[in-house]
Amino acid sequence: MNLLIVHAHHEPQSFVTSMKDLTVRHFEAAGWSVQVSDLYAMDFNPVASPADFGARQNPDYLTYALEQRHNWNGKTLAPDIVAEVEKVQWADLIIFSFPVYWYSLPAILKGWVDRVFISGVCYGGTRIYDKGGLKGKRAMLATSLGGQTHMFGPGAIHGELDTLLKPIHQGMLGYVGLTVLPPFVAYHVPYLKAPEREAIMAQYQAHLNQIDSLQPLRMPSLADYDATMHPLKPVG
Amino acid sequence: MNLLIVHAHHEPQSFVTSMKDLTVRHFEAAGWSVQVSDLYAMDFNPVASPADFGARQNPDYLTYALEQRHNWNGKTLAPDIVAEVEKVQWADLIIFSFPVYWYSLPAILKGWVDRVFISGVCYGGTRIYDKGGLKGKRAMLATSLGGQTHMFGPGAIHGELDTLLKPIHQGMLGYVGLTVLPPFVAYHVPYLKAPEREAIMAQYQAHLNQIDSLQPLRMPSLADYDATMHPLKPVG
Repeated sequence: MNLLIVHAHHEPQSFVTSMKDLTVRHFEAAGWSVQVSDLYAMDFNPVASPADFGARQNPDYLTYALEQRHNWNGKTLAPDIVAEVEKVQWADLIIFSFPVYWYSLPAILKGWVDRVFISGVCYGGTRIYDKGGLKGKRAMLATSLGGQTHMFGPGAIHGELDTLLKPIHQGMLGYVGLTVLPPFVAYHVPYLKAPEREAIMAQYQAHLNQIDSLQPLRMPSLADYDATMHPLKPVG
Repeated sequence: MNLLIVHAHHEPQSFVTSMKDLTVRHFEAAGWSVQVSDLYAMDFNPVASPADFGARQNPDYLTYALEQRHNWNGKTLAPDIVAEVEKVQWADLIIFSFPVYWYSLPAILKGWVDRVFISGVCYGGTRIYDKGGLKGKRAMLATSLGGQTHMFGPGAIHGELDTLLKPIHQGMLGYVGLTVLPPFVAYHVPYLKAPEREAIMAQYQAHLNQIDSLQPLRMPSLADYDATMHPLKPVG
């Protein structure tokens, strides 16, 4: 089995980086092949731009998704994108390792999604959700937050974390057909002392130990919608 | 009155770029001062990194928010960030002009938030939401989507758009104290012909005409929470 870790942290001594190192050790010990895309170390370019395409289908007007498809087929897509797409194709499991910035991905990781989840391979037309291009592969977030657990949930100041992560879980990962496992979230990490951090790291190890028995998040199924994506059953 | 438009599109002929141009004309005609941060044209760097700080409070371990505060106070923050922070301070209204990528901001714009909404000026400690550092200013999204209107809402395939935009509206804009106006969303834009696009542009003009009477989105109020952010009233 093959694991791709997409890691985005600018501090090599960070807790998230330690979680990433634990992830590597855990899966290598279990006999998996592991690749890490360490986006800061790679100086990964997160900006989707015309420079991503060696041969434009339409040189006069950039429609990014159409050019992704055209340049992938013509083997003229930027080499840094191709390398990441090939890692995604190789992987059985993708773990996203990052600190939550503004209830979303750090820009360097958001740009990895923007540039690497290419139309024609990862999705396209009605090839989304349970018909998505990455169907059969699993994905999971392994992340940290500045906030405390009591700041999230019904009635809590920031609301439910599941809601805040929905654009990532459903809009990015589920959308391309990935089976999305429950995330591991380390709360309040910048403000914790060593023993508390070690306790969270032990919880993360337990999360990894049971990864095959985690219940995936529920995603839309195309079977519930017609060819134009109207719901087959009335909303009620 | 002062308007800052933060614009992120790689195609100068795009619909979103035309919306941005209309926004400039509308507010200038009304006597406002307008500045545009055209992130692609500026080749804006979206990656939060140690290079953002001229003088580190802690050279051995990067805590990004702490260094933002330290370097802002010491006038050693990267000049490209300072220029944007000063535009934010100058603005009475900030309009974010972008196409939705993966139910979120394009990376170049996400990185503007990551680097420019600095701790100590825009938020800090319990200075969030209605106590946030940008209190008294307004913000609005002016955006486009590939999907159609029937793909969003209760029971629709992608769920409710309000939910998908919550990390932006509440987690980024509301969090720093901005009064968040209802977004303008142009649906299905890449697939529309000229008359349909013109009709949407007229709807956007109407949205701008009534901007002062738009009801802001509801955000959490610190009055409902104690000093440690526990809810004062039981959840029920």
